[in-house]
Amino acid sequence: MGPKVRLGILGATGTVGQRMIALADGHPQFVVTAVAASERSQGRPYGEACVWRLPGEMPAAVRSLPVRSPEPPLDCDLVLSSLPAEVAGDVETQFAEAGYPVVSNSSSHRMDAGVPLLVPEINPGHLALLEPRGGGGFIVTNPNCSTIMLALALAPLQARFGVEAVVVTTFQAISGAGYPGVASLDIMDNVVPFIANEEEKIERETLKILGRVGGGAIQPAGFPVSAQCHRVPVVDGHLAAVRVRLSRSAEPSDLREAFTSFRGPPQELALPTAPACPILVRHEPDRPQPRLDRDSGAGMSITVGRILRDRVMGHRFVVLSHNTIRGAAGAALLNAELLLARGHLG
Amino acid sequence: MGPKVRLGILGATGTVGQRMIALADGHPQFVVTAVAASERSQGRPYGEACVWRLPGEMPAAVRSLPVRSPEPPLDCDLVLSSLPAEVAGDVETQFAEAGYPVVSNSSSHRMDAGVPLLVPEINPGHLALLEPRGGGGFIVTNPNCSTIMLALALAPLQARFGVEAVVVTTFQAISGAGYPGVASLDIMDNVVPFIANEEEKIERETLKILGRVGGGAIQPAGFPVSAQCHRVPVVDGHLAAVRVRLSRSAEPSDLREAFTSFRGPPQELALPTAPACPILVRHEPDRPQPRLDRDSGAGMSITVGRILRDRVMGHRFVVLSHNTIRGAAGAALLNAELLLARGHLG
Amino acid sequence: MGPKVRLGILGATGTVGQRMIALADGHPQFVVTAVAASERSQGRPYGEACVWRLPGEMPAAVRSLPVRSPEPPLDCDLVLSSLPAEVAGDVETQFAEAGYPVVSNSSSHRMDAGVPLLVPEINPGHLALLEPRGGGGFIVTNPNCSTIMLALALAPLQARFGVEAVVVTTFQAISGAGYPGVASLDIMDNVVPFIANEEEKIERETLKILGRVGGGAIQPAGFPVSAQCHRVPVVDGHLAAVRVRLSRSAEPSDLREAFTSFRGPPQELALPTAPACPILVRHEPDRPQPRLDRDSGAGMSITVGRILRDRVMGHRFVVLSHNTIRGAAGAALLNAELLLARGHLG
Amino acid sequence: MGPKVRLGILGATGTVGQRMIALADGHPQFVVTAVAASERSQGRPYGEACVWRLPGEMPAAVRSLPVRSPEPPLDCDLVLSSLPAEVAGDVETQFAEAGYPVVSNSSSHRMDAGVPLLVPEINPGHLALLEPRGGGGFIVTNPNCSTIMLALALAPLQARFGVEAVVVTTFQAISGAGYPGVASLDIMDNVVPFIANEEEKIERETLKILGRVGGGAIQPAGFPVSAQCHRVPVVDGHLAAVRVRLSRSAEPSDLREAFTSFRGPPQELALPTAPACPILVRHEPDRPQPRLDRDSGAGMSITVGRILRDRVMGHRFVVLSHNTIRGAAGAALLNAELLLARGHLG
Repeated sequence: MGPKVRLGILGATGTVGQRMIALADGHPQFVVTAVAASERSQGRPYGEACVWRLPGEMPAAVRSLPVRSPEPPLDCDLVLSSLPAEVAGDVETQFAEAGYPVVSNSSSHRMDAGVPLLVPEINPGHLALLEPRGGGGFIVTNPNCSTIMLALALAPLQARFGVEAVVVTTFQAISGAGYPGVASLDIMDNVVPFIANEEEKIERETLKILGRVGGGAIQPAGFPVSAQCHRVPVVDGHLAAVRVRLSRSAEPSDLREAFTSFRGPPQELALPTAPACPILVRHEPDRPQPRLDRDSGAGMSITVGRILRDRVMGHRFVVLSHNTIRGAAGAALLNAELLLARGHLG
Repeated sequence: MGPKVRLGILGATGTVGQRMIALADGHPQFVVTAVAASERSQGRPYGEACVWRLPGEMPAAVRSLPVRSPEPPLDCDLVLSSLPAEVAGDVETQFAEAGYPVVSNSSSHRMDAGVPLLVPEINPGHLALLEPRGGGGFIVTNPNCSTIMLALALAPLQARFGVEAVVVTTFQAISGAGYPGVASLDIMDNVVPFIANEEEKIERETLKILGRVGGGAIQPAGFPVSAQCHRVPVVDGHLAAVRVRLSRSAEPSDLREAFTSFRGPPQELALPTAPACPILVRHEPDRPQPRLDRDSGAGMSITVGRILRDRVMGHRFVVLSHNTIRGAAGAALLNAELLLARGHLG
Repeated sequence: MGPKVRLGILGATGTVGQRMIALADGHPQFVVTAVAASERSQGRPYGEACVWRLPGEMPAAVRSLPVRSPEPPLDCDLVLSSLPAEVAGDVETQFAEAGYPVVSNSSSHRMDAGVPLLVPEINPGHLALLEPRGGGGFIVTNPNCSTIMLALALAPLQARFGVEAVVVTTFQAISGAGYPGVASLDIMDNVVPFIANEEEKIERETLKILGRVGGGAIQPAGFPVSAQCHRVPVVDGHLAAVRVRLSRSAEPSDLREAFTSFRGPPQELALPTAPACPILVRHEPDRPQPRLDRDSGAGMSITVGRILRDRVMGHRFVVLSHNTIRGAAGAALLNAELLLARGHLG
Repeated sequence: MGPKVRLGILGATGTVGQRMIALADGHPQFVVTAVAASERSQGRPYGEACVWRLPGEMPAAVRSLPVRSPEPPLDCDLVLSSLPAEVAGDVETQFAEAGYPVVSNSSSHRMDAGVPLLVPEINPGHLALLEPRGGGGFIVTNPNCSTIMLALALAPLQARFGVEAVVVTTFQAISGAGYPGVASLDIMDNVVPFIANEEEKIERETLKILGRVGGGAIQPAGFPVSAQCHRVPVVDGHLAAVRVRLSRSAEPSDLREAFTSFRGPPQELALPTAPACPILVRHEPDRPQPRLDRDSGAGMSITVGRILRDRVMGHRFVVLSHNTIRGAAGAALLNAELLLARGHLG
């Protein structure tokens, strides 16, 4: 085993940045050697600049790291970015052009032609399109926190039965909006039927993830997706009610079997952050539930339940995932692990 | 103005029964003269037997009424029932056969052939089928708390554009389950994707409400309805994300116009509990919201927002109503008012 | 009845400003003629500049009022201020010196020697010290949202039994922090045992309110107050657990009687915003509760319960009030009504 | 290392029983060999009879255990009881008299003369009074979930400074009431200032725990305790605001030092469930918080913060613990570990 890959975390003081640091703590292949954040935090040790908002203590190893400006050079081999969308675009391009591999959770480059929108269990082949920038740098992104669980659930259905149309209605946790994020006065005893740009992201990103490489580009999947998105008073764990029209007839038990047997390269390669089982199926009539199921597979498994026939679309089910682990920080880390395993980190 | 119609409330100590009593307090046409509840409460004054769980004080006029057994005879002209489904069936039949008009919020008789499933703005014509029992008694029901807002929203769309298929996903408040109802450990920081029998009720009741009288019976509407139901941590106010496939092409603005101009007999007759406007449309991108919109029209208006085109179904919107007022106690009261106005109360 | 007093609202777009506007709507003595807020809102009609966050609709009468800068002159006879503390100090002084009566909910001037900290039921005599500024202007303040219910509860105890020491522990609603105020990630499934400066405010303001005018100044009450303050996941309604050591021995029933019989000038003068009964006492073992009792007396009554002997301090009870009505906007309005009734508005 | 001690869990399907099973799973000294519960569950395998309400999966090892009636004989060496108080009294006596060591979380025997109310860090000496019943059985209890954190926090203060009086105000999580426990309609957007018998338990149990063995009996500590108890909308984690009057003068920093240096036999013996540090002190102004601190020390450390001077009582602080781990299941397990280490398990 060689030396650990040195990580630089962009947006290190945010909620996803903190999750990235927590997940990297004690990681067998990675070590955090640099943290960068907005001007307000720069120049102070991370332990002082960052108000730790996760349960438990900030990992001791990062406390004394000075908070840097998010620009190259940075003392690291690979950049994990969870910058806000309004700054991520330019900064990530800068790092890639300066020769850094960039693994990003931000939305800025997700739909770029040369940037894989990577879910290692679904579309590792999209890495073929990796567009190397000056000096060997590149950008790999993970999807929006709601999209990833939808894409994971659709992947085995698309492979076995074909997908003709998808209708998804989300129940999204407050941690998905970062900190301070959702005002408590907006969400307590309430539901907000609107999350800016979220419906468009789900409708668009799902098709890229499930698309095929062809003609030197990604050909998005061809079915329509309808998404209605809502914020609910839940701390962690996005849930979605999904209806799907399949190309071939199938029993609910066929879907169940497709879900539970689904595996991908992360499982085959036994990547450190990979769950043994990417899709868990629960049989109780009232599961999945955010509070009980979000931490399954250390937050990296999604959970599916209520697989039933649907009068309008043919089939339906409910899916849940931990939005800041499988839906953000853990997704980025798993992408980095796949890049390492596939030899993309030099 | 003649003497007031005397109401007997069955299930008077429950959450819907309490709402009925609150709404009847000071009513220009009705007065509560009898209350009935389960054995535990019988024989004591209502003021002692009932733990009042609504904000504010129990109406003074009912405090000294003795709690009776839910069986005829009862000192009243009309029975309002919110009994639990497991006892409502027999008890309501008994009262009807003893000559009482029964206006029920319970699910037991909703699908009976001779029982109108009445929403006064939508299907007052269903009263034509009223099946008189021995002595002039009869049963009229109102729909399930989630169904009623869906049916109200669909009514103007069905009339103007025709409805081909409906996909509805609900976010239902805890008060819909009565008291003690949902355990706090089940719903705090959580969503429960299951409410017993709720999906079936919505899929079935909607079609009866929107059906036509023909051949001496109600011919249910012919389109398929798909419902996925969820409990969310909200006190009052059911919200639903709705997609609808229409028979004729329409702009979102056409739907908006159909919603806002919708009126029915309750408005024409200026029934005391009728809202001026049964369907309110909000233009903000993030409305309706349960906490802000549930009390619109004193809880008797439903609120629609986010009227948009949908990639799979054609159109979509979000609808909200107060589940224990328009969705239960207020619905029953409005039904009673229509019966009185139409001369069905002798 | 003469023409209405014209109100100018400073901080009109904030949560307390909105409550002021809601309470002034339809008021028999007042009419809002001017609204002022921070730079971001200035120059636009109030209906556009302000996101209305209270249930129901923004009053129609204020929609077209242009949002002004918070500086004199302003088209009004009296200024109601709910400006943030960091700007209120100077701005309110400016208005007073320009001849405007200023009724403020802000903390800046509460402890000033010439500024009454007024609760009309408790210390109307403090108006004797009103310090007129240039042109007849002056400032009157109301207490912090937690202090006011404590002071109201202590007033009759001090009068009848004498107070030797007070220990108060608060459970404060999120609306007390304004908007966006408390981040949902901080308070959902949580309690925060800290509210900046709140403990000091309660310990200090209570003594001024209950102090006596003497030697041309207010002599604060002499007993020690201990306050521990906490934010809890409740939308509206501050609750406090109180222990009190009295100078004279008393039965719990004596305290109950002192609370329920308490009245002041607002009740004698029948001021429009005054509740019939400033202190309600509940006898159930589990009341008061924020959700059930906050709206008592249209939010202007406080509710006391659980009056018991205490092993350490002698007596204890629990008190609750609506923090943005009796604790803020309603308190200011009642102060304005008293000023009008007493002839302080010219 | 000898064979594992075989545990029988009484009340195994309840929330505390489930926690006991979760904590015993993989325990180095214990193994669950019997489960008992109420009639409804008896005769079925635990995996079927019990709806698992903790996050994650029910431990595989207990799934097939048949649910027994809670009466001797039971196939185990030691009985862990979390039976409801109304049945625990007789049942636990029966087991003790049948020769079983009984470690109970129930309140029934806590104040019995011959039953230690044991917190291993505080009063291991109370085991001297263990009253052996027929056949060598006995009963050891742990305190109420709110009392234990108060007693732990007071222990080092009593030892160093002496305690003269204590005033405690609690903010208690819903899981403390078991399942179904608190109705969601009672607690959402609310605080309930009442928990049956809780104030009396805290006021009484604290003194027994901190009492001394003398004259063959426990002499309770002599200072008065005042407790006001409240239920708040938090899933897990009881918080308490504490004021204390000490016998000797002390700086807040002296209290801090007393807390952080506190250790007891569980730490010296390195018992498996013992936290390295029983009392953690946080220095941030807004900690401890239930959601962030409840899992400290795997739920077995309590967390203290906001240590300040108090105008009435001299000193104050805030304390938090996980109510179903350190406050219930973990407390019982730690008691069992101490009994084993001290040779009380035969």
